[in-house]
Amino acid sequence: MANIEAIHRYIEEHEEEHIGKVQEFLRQPSISAENLGVKECAELLRQYYAELGCKEAELVPTEGHPGVWAYYDAGAEKTIVNYCMYDVQPIVGEGWSSPPFEANIVTMPPFGRVIINRGAINSKGPYRAWLNALESIIAVEGKLPVNIMFTAEGEEELGSPHFPQIIEKYTDRLKTADAGLMCGAGQDQQGKIRMSLGNKGIVYMELECSGKDWGRGPQQYDIHSSNKAVVDSPVWRLMQALSTMTSPDGNSILIDRYYDKIAPPSKEDVELVDQLVDVFDDSVWKDMYKVERWIDDEKGREFLLRYLYSTTLNIDGIWGGYTGPGTKTVLPYKVTCKMDTRLVPNQESKDIVPLIRAHLDKHGYSDIEVRQLAGYEWSKTSIKDPVVQAVLSVYEKYGIKPIVWPHMGGSAPMYLYTRPPVNIPICTAGLGHGGRAHSPDEYYVIEGNDKVAGLVKAEKSFVDILYAFANWPKAK
Amino acid sequence: MANIEAIHRYIEEHEEEHIGKVQEFLRQPSISAENLGVKECAELLRQYYAELGCKEAELVPTEGHPGVWAYYDAGAEKTIVNYCMYDVQPIVGEGWSSPPFEANIVTMPPFGRVIINRGAINSKGPYRAWLNALESIIAVEGKLPVNIMFTAEGEEELGSPHFPQIIEKYTDRLKTADAGLMCGAGQDQQGKIRMSLGNKGIVYMELECSGKDWGRGPQQYDIHSSNKAVVDSPVWRLMQALSTMTSPDGNSILIDRYYDKIAPPSKEDVELVDQLVDVFDDSVWKDMYKVERWIDDEKGREFLLRYLYSTTLNIDGIWGGYTGPGTKTVLPYKVTCKMDTRLVPNQESKDIVPLIRAHLDKHGYSDIEVRQLAGYEWSKTSIKDPVVQAVLSVYEKYGIKPIVWPHMGGSAPMYLYTRPPVNIPICTAGLGHGGRAHSPDEYYVIEGNDKVAGLVKAEKSFVDILYAFANWPKAK
Repeated sequence: MANIEAIHRYIEEHEEEHIGKVQEFLRQPSISAENLGVKECAELLRQYYAELGCKEAELVPTEGHPGVWAYYDAGAEKTIVNYCMYDVQPIVGEGWSSPPFEANIVTMPPFGRVIINRGAINSKGPYRAWLNALESIIAVEGKLPVNIMFTAEGEEELGSPHFPQIIEKYTDRLKTADAGLMCGAGQDQQGKIRMSLGNKGIVYMELECSGKDWGRGPQQYDIHSSNKAVVDSPVWRLMQALSTMTSPDGNSILIDRYYDKIAPPSKEDVELVDQLVDVFDDSVWKDMYKVERWIDDEKGREFLLRYLYSTTLNIDGIWGGYTGPGTKTVLPYKVTCKMDTRLVPNQESKDIVPLIRAHLDKHGYSDIEVRQLAGYEWSKTSIKDPVVQAVLSVYEKYGIKPIVWPHMGGSAPMYLYTRPPVNIPICTAGLGHGGRAHSPDEYYVIEGNDKVAGLVKAEKSFVDILYAFANWPKAK
Repeated sequence: MANIEAIHRYIEEHEEEHIGKVQEFLRQPSISAENLGVKECAELLRQYYAELGCKEAELVPTEGHPGVWAYYDAGAEKTIVNYCMYDVQPIVGEGWSSPPFEANIVTMPPFGRVIINRGAINSKGPYRAWLNALESIIAVEGKLPVNIMFTAEGEEELGSPHFPQIIEKYTDRLKTADAGLMCGAGQDQQGKIRMSLGNKGIVYMELECSGKDWGRGPQQYDIHSSNKAVVDSPVWRLMQALSTMTSPDGNSILIDRYYDKIAPPSKEDVELVDQLVDVFDDSVWKDMYKVERWIDDEKGREFLLRYLYSTTLNIDGIWGGYTGPGTKTVLPYKVTCKMDTRLVPNQESKDIVPLIRAHLDKHGYSDIEVRQLAGYEWSKTSIKDPVVQAVLSVYEKYGIKPIVWPHMGGSAPMYLYTRPPVNIPICTAGLGHGGRAHSPDEYYVIEGNDKVAGLVKAEKSFVDILYAFANWPKAK
């Protein structure tokens, strides 16, 4: 039987050292979009895994930034897969009160001391705290209670374009694991935890209408707009084509068979939604997103069902012709839009472009190009899964009843774990708080208060979660 | 009786001096977009008018760059109004073989010596040649055969935003004139002259759809696109709104009463078009604009009628949301497009925004903002007008039969002269050739060849045109 109390005490006694480790990791820049410090950060992470006692700890070359793979063999019965993103967002024209890579500790009411740094909360701060917790277990107990396969990528902020290359390389190993754990700082400012058991899928596309592909309109460059009298317009063509894709309100997709594969919410999902209705306050979201009215002025349960179980078709951006100040009279030779669609069970990413292609062809727009830029599948883990139940039991011990969402509205590449061939459940876990991700003065709470865990308590929660899972009865 | 031959000889004898004058005017930069040398150039032009013997020669302050007004009183029976634009386009990232404000003379086959300079052809080179011609007449004859009201602006390259302020100030004078003359270098590389007797009008607008004006969708900034499930999209709204404005092919305008005021081509226009059919070669245009097919594959007479007598509705540019490389998932809070419409007789610019406003309102888009940025009326002068006939007689003398267009497809502020209150006919005139307007190595031909007039011959043509008009019988 492990001495959890001794591990907790060890964490308390090594607080300063652990803060230093968090600072060390944060001070190593790893801006994937600018290729700034990325390789160095991957090497630092590899070294952390080696210091932990991983006999395997290696960089994984990809067509982009390297991943990191490591394996900690505890000789244990259970094995978890751990996900890490080690890259961070760029600093572009932002005013920081403390330099973004100095990892200075400042006081920020009501949280006490916090670390200010790019990546402080998203997600290098909590990740190093998680490694601190593992080191503490090993220091006290000699080894971890589970085997761990570490999978890290350095391109999350780019949309994880090469993450599949990392997962594919170790698929045969990963599929032998029992569960996945993503350890972070899950508390909001009030100390509450929102837990999502999955995510929607996504397909991100560009649609382009050009005179060249059409064989009409200007073929090579924007021409003087007086020619509109005799020259067709690729811009009008795209407007007309796009308008056929949705109802006049822009909210129903008029593409044949687009909704065909969508499954109704499962019984478990409906139960989770019913619990959510009581605690969900849409006014917080309205304030956060500066939205005054939801589609159809939906409320409560209907709002949640629509948010969670609707596929979407969104225009992320559109551009063509002259977009500067004042007047310039041109007939543009092409126009492009970016579009994303969110996928709910049981939509499949591979169907989307063919459906849109067929729609455009049917309406006579076979020349309009559809380019897929990215695609993830939706992902779901059951609340009944042992890894989820183990995590919930630890939260309960800390007096926290998390708000559990069946999945989130956004997308992530978690299907690479939860779908075959790897096919394991996955759960996010951990106390702690931070904020201002992707923004100036991004922070991670070190001291904490009566609602929000500081670093020590966060590390303790990681220890507890690991043991809770190790001791949880295996799923049949 | 004036001694035209003596004036021509004077021009030949002063060729070097006249080249120097052209160089002097060109070397004074006058980039209106950058406010570079504009005031200095206006002052130089004012001085030219004074040197000519204009008792009135003054800068005309506007809310933008100054205009210039001058009056040459010949005590003559007839008075012409002369238009000048003294500003030029910027030099942006262009590679010039000769510096753009050195006015160097180089040899350019097949034209012999040419001057390379920004504004060489558009339009300071020919304009100074015109002033050289006037000086020569005065040197030989003591005075000009007509009175001249000079009206110059320094913002043509900006769309002449303050030109009306200049015209309005002198309206009472201008309306007493007999005709307007715009003297330039009208020959193409083959020595042919295309003459337009007018232009279409234009209204340039921006249409904007924003969450804020709509009361739906994101109100203040782009939000995460996963919210599309519950948040309305201003981009889809604009796509849907725009799609109601045209037929599916983008070529017929579906706005109520848009075509109501359009008059059929006049008898004179139809005659001009019938003459054009024989000489117009659309393959030259196809090559110039890189267009493979015209709307409805129109040809010959039908093509010309459509080009000249169609109003248009064109999207000049559109932008909103994320338009950079790769993927960024946002639901944009607003989207904007620039739109222009070309006006043919008897459309009026004041009607356009109200018609579009009414269309949007009728379709439920009363929140979409329509901003007018600029507007000109169409303009026409009859081929039978003495000023046109006088110019044509000179071309005939030089063995040139110009291709006469009833008007051009583009727009210009000539209605300020041709409509009440000024209400005078206006004609472009002059031999000479230059090219690469708005482009590197812009040139104006000095030497010329058997097809294209050089500087001396161009100046002689201006002399001839002025006397032809002075001697032409007045219109009844």
